[in-house]
Amino acid sequence: VSREQFPNGLSTIEISATNRGLAYGDGVFETMRCVDHEIPLWAHHKERLLQALKRLQIKLDEPLLESELNGVIAKLPAQGAAVIKLIVARGDSERGYRADPDAESWRLWQILPAPPLYSGLLTLGLCETRLANQPLLAGMKHLNRLEQVLARLEWQDQYQDALMCDYHSNVIESVSANVFVLKNNRLFTPRMDRCGVAGVLRAFLINRILPQLDLPVSETEISLEDIRNADGLWLCNSVRGVGEVGQWLDVSWRPSPRFVAMRRALHSGLHPEWGK
Amino acid sequence: VSREQFPNGLSTIEISATNRGLAYGDGVFETMRCVDHEIPLWAHHKERLLQALKRLQIKLDEPLLESELNGVIAKLPAQGAAVIKLIVARGDSERGYRADPDAESWRLWQILPAPPLYSGLLTLGLCETRLANQPLLAGMKHLNRLEQVLARLEWQDQYQDALMCDYHSNVIESVSANVFVLKNNRLFTPRMDRCGVAGVLRAFLINRILPQLDLPVSETEISLEDIRNADGLWLCNSVRGVGEVGQWLDVSWRPSPRFVAMRRALHSGLHPEWGK
Repeated sequence: VSREQFPNGLSTIEISATNRGLAYGDGVFETMRCVDHEIPLWAHHKERLLQALKRLQIKLDEPLLESELNGVIAKLPAQGAAVIKLIVARGDSERGYRADPDAESWRLWQILPAPPLYSGLLTLGLCETRLANQPLLAGMKHLNRLEQVLARLEWQDQYQDALMCDYHSNVIESVSANVFVLKNNRLFTPRMDRCGVAGVLRAFLINRILPQLDLPVSETEISLEDIRNADGLWLCNSVRGVGEVGQWLDVSWRPSPRFVAMRRALHSGLHPEWGK
Repeated sequence: VSREQFPNGLSTIEISATNRGLAYGDGVFETMRCVDHEIPLWAHHKERLLQALKRLQIKLDEPLLESELNGVIAKLPAQGAAVIKLIVARGDSERGYRADPDAESWRLWQILPAPPLYSGLLTLGLCETRLANQPLLAGMKHLNRLEQVLARLEWQDQYQDALMCDYHSNVIESVSANVFVLKNNRLFTPRMDRCGVAGVLRAFLINRILPQLDLPVSETEISLEDIRNADGLWLCNSVRGVGEVGQWLDVSWRPSPRFVAMRRALHSGLHPEWGK
């Protein structure tokens, strides 16, 4: 799938010179997998987006959001997968940090090629870059992403992703995904209330898929030692799906039937073409 | 001074749709007071900028920086004050967080009206928004500024600025300035190694002005109680200059001759027209 297929695979855009997304990272984003004109996780993306905008006091008219999304989807071929990326920044003001509370948000919609879903056994590293604890921003997919950028600078192609800890050495997430740890037929996933991005697929798994599978899941603190002693380590990302880790540092795991069952339940819960 | 006087008081700009400043706040900025075609603090702005870019591994050709600055200054009227704002973002890549290590940075120069220097006795508040400790980003004027945006949302016009603490209740800075605390003829200013922006004027005061004045200064931890017990509280900002706080919550201070002496030394150390 090449970018040229997508009518708004934008190369340049015109923005206000005082755009607050650019000036301060003052906004949030969503990257959404669209399959056959449908975003199976849309309700969850929308919920996270609106919650974040509320926390940040950014105004967005919800019917406008829906109508813009429909306009973007209408530009896509009827069949196939694509990624729709939405950036919402706080509306303009010209007063430094001070915001205009009445300014409607600014939005950028982009259509991008869908990357392949995770497949096979993933190899993970461990980042030296740590996440700061900031409860006021925790969970949101906001535009202040220098920690992830610094973390991703730590390696080239040696592994597909890498775990990140906070300064208390709790494992929080990988650079691009949320993590689930399998131990004694239970799942554990890091709390997202002090740092980290609370992924949309993570929420869907916890609330909709895992309850079908007799796989109890807890949101908790997870140490590197917990990962080392785990029976399995899984990643999830709303664009790449779910992935099973085969190797992390000197620890290896074999493919697990529990992962296969979870992935099957996820794919049938999402969209008939999601896993194709 | 109106914006229209400035030939590049840009209203809109064209950027790449994948601009990393917009997508991730992946860059830094400087706002610089220019007086009569001169930026008195340029050497310090440049030093901070280059240090930050080095820490973030963003490429910027230094001669190019100087030549672009000269081009911007040439557009200004020969007399008078203006603010030059520079945003430097990491050069484009199209791979999510992953950066292209060879990409030259992207730069945006803007000419803005100079705000008045601080004058009179300032009134300060105290923010509930706290700064997260992140040594990897501390000190830099990077584009991840959601904490300052949230802090500035806490008030309208009741005071001119407000102090911010970290989660250990150390006072770090105000939303828009660095702070100096006067106590027993000594100055104290918060450490900038865990959070906060290490201001260019702060550095100039510490290294060049205060040593002339027999005002010993220490970079240290400062509590709210220290502020309450202080003999004076001063702000500094490279665009607004130095300001003396008259009121903070229920604490008030009278004008101090030490402040007047410091400001006089600063102004004559900067530029004959700086304080006009």
